[in-house]
Amino acid sequence: MINQLAIIGVGLIGGSLSLALKQAGKVNEVIGYSRTESVRQQALDLGVIDRAANSIADAVKEADVIFLAVPMAAMEPVLVELAAHVKPGAIITDGGSAKAQVVQAARSALTNNFEQFVAGHPIAGTEKSGPDAAFASLYQDHRVVLTPVAETNPAALESIRQMWQATGAEVLNMEVEHHDVVLAATSHLPHVLAFNLVGMLAERDDCDEVLRYAAGGFKDFSRIASSDAVMWRDICLTNKDAILGLLEQYHQGLNKIEQAIREQDGGYLTDVFERAKQARDNRFADPDLIDNSEV
Amino acid sequence: MINQLAIIGVGLIGGSLSLALKQAGKVNEVIGYSRTESVRQQALDLGVIDRAANSIADAVKEADVIFLAVPMAAMEPVLVELAAHVKPGAIITDGGSAKAQVVQAARSALTNNFEQFVAGHPIAGTEKSGPDAAFASLYQDHRVVLTPVAETNPAALESIRQMWQATGAEVLNMEVEHHDVVLAATSHLPHVLAFNLVGMLAERDDCDEVLRYAAGGFKDFSRIASSDAVMWRDICLTNKDAILGLLEQYHQGLNKIEQAIREQDGGYLTDVFERAKQARDNRFADPDLIDNSEV
Repeated sequence: MINQLAIIGVGLIGGSLSLALKQAGKVNEVIGYSRTESVRQQALDLGVIDRAANSIADAVKEADVIFLAVPMAAMEPVLVELAAHVKPGAIITDGGSAKAQVVQAARSALTNNFEQFVAGHPIAGTEKSGPDAAFASLYQDHRVVLTPVAETNPAALESIRQMWQATGAEVLNMEVEHHDVVLAATSHLPHVLAFNLVGMLAERDDCDEVLRYAAGGFKDFSRIASSDAVMWRDICLTNKDAILGLLEQYHQGLNKIEQAIREQDGGYLTDVFERAKQARDNRFADPDLIDNSEV
Repeated sequence: MINQLAIIGVGLIGGSLSLALKQAGKVNEVIGYSRTESVRQQALDLGVIDRAANSIADAVKEADVIFLAVPMAAMEPVLVELAAHVKPGAIITDGGSAKAQVVQAARSALTNNFEQFVAGHPIAGTEKSGPDAAFASLYQDHRVVLTPVAETNPAALESIRQMWQATGAEVLNMEVEHHDVVLAATSHLPHVLAFNLVGMLAERDDCDEVLRYAAGGFKDFSRIASSDAVMWRDICLTNKDAILGLLEQYHQGLNKIEQAIREQDGGYLTDVFERAKQARDNRFADPDLIDNSEV
């Protein structure tokens, strides 16, 4: 049971944690802070939080647990700002999509308090944002990855694990670097690839006409290109190393496919495509019917 | 009304055309041929066709309309084989996903009869295949692109247009080269990109573990990587020029994004991502809720 929870960034991620813990009866009071006054007020009006704080200092000073749900680019400045106001024993955790940079920022900002920092990443979200997008079941049956380091206080880690379990999520621990590569491979790189394709088509004079022939297959493939541009800019900038490493591999793979097409090497293409199909079907045991898969 | 329709390749595409025309009462008799005897029998048993032919010659000799629904790689040999057996005035059409190569093959195989060839592409399909996957409404509300050339007999073109309209499809005409670029951009390239990503992940030792963290965004993005490997090999080989041209552009776009990530140029990333989001949202006015879009 958390007595006072401070949520910095009361949007979809922060607001949904608040609603989930309230519903589970695992928190007494939720203090919310957002840089934008109207957002704080909206979160309060919607009952997403119990009290709106006027500053980060005000939000965290009596909190037992502090959850940072701000854009990746804001993690470091927020950590620097709250460091001096955290009460002894308070636990600080976050929901950032890439962990290496946040952990580094926390280590330098929190100094002696760093052992009370538990880096985390709830693998859930929708394309919506803001307090009005928050809902209590967002994390139900989703994974939450915690990336403790050597200094992390086991008791703090356990508290955050229990907090997320109360939302219905499956909580796992992972090495920071491994988390960042895994997420780059399954999320960050796919977003970059989809953004690049649709962005490239958008530059064509005949874009509208071309996209008129885009059917189900393209619609599914490009869905993630409909995600928030600023959020994904931040993720690309903060998970730079993992994404660049995978992009390098991706280029190499694409070059080989290009060469096979140029040299009409059907055997190579079948091998790659079949390997991909097998891996994909194994992961998603129920391969959905593809409307216009051939398109 | 078609008196006798010959379908070469009685799978999802050929079988669905037969069922749609039967349901619409627009065909008297459908003769089906498949290289595999058991497939011909299955199509007959399922009522997808009225009679199974034992050879291409037997299938086409009395047909008024001949529909080629074979894999892209089989189009040329099939055209060569049937050329000598087509009755005068018969119309030959196809359902291939790339048109330049089929048109070229038809021109050389059909010689004097080439004016009776109408190249077409029904933009519809599912990930399933075979006669048992065929259903009458496959083409309902989908687009069918016809790519007539200078020699094409207008009467033959009109007959094929009416045939597809009877299935509930929207029929459009397009230049051969334009069709191949449009389909490469909206279908062939996305498939190559998805196959390459999943194929690359499949090569990792920790593939299973990595994919365990792949959520909704990845599932949608990679759905097309679950398509038939041989069919897509053939499409890549037959639409070589259009695909290679777009792959070149894609590499350039990816290189710019890579450079922006390396140089932490957030402005460039936001521009590309935002442009992509706008184009995608404009095309699909009802942006679906992305489960785990952030993942």
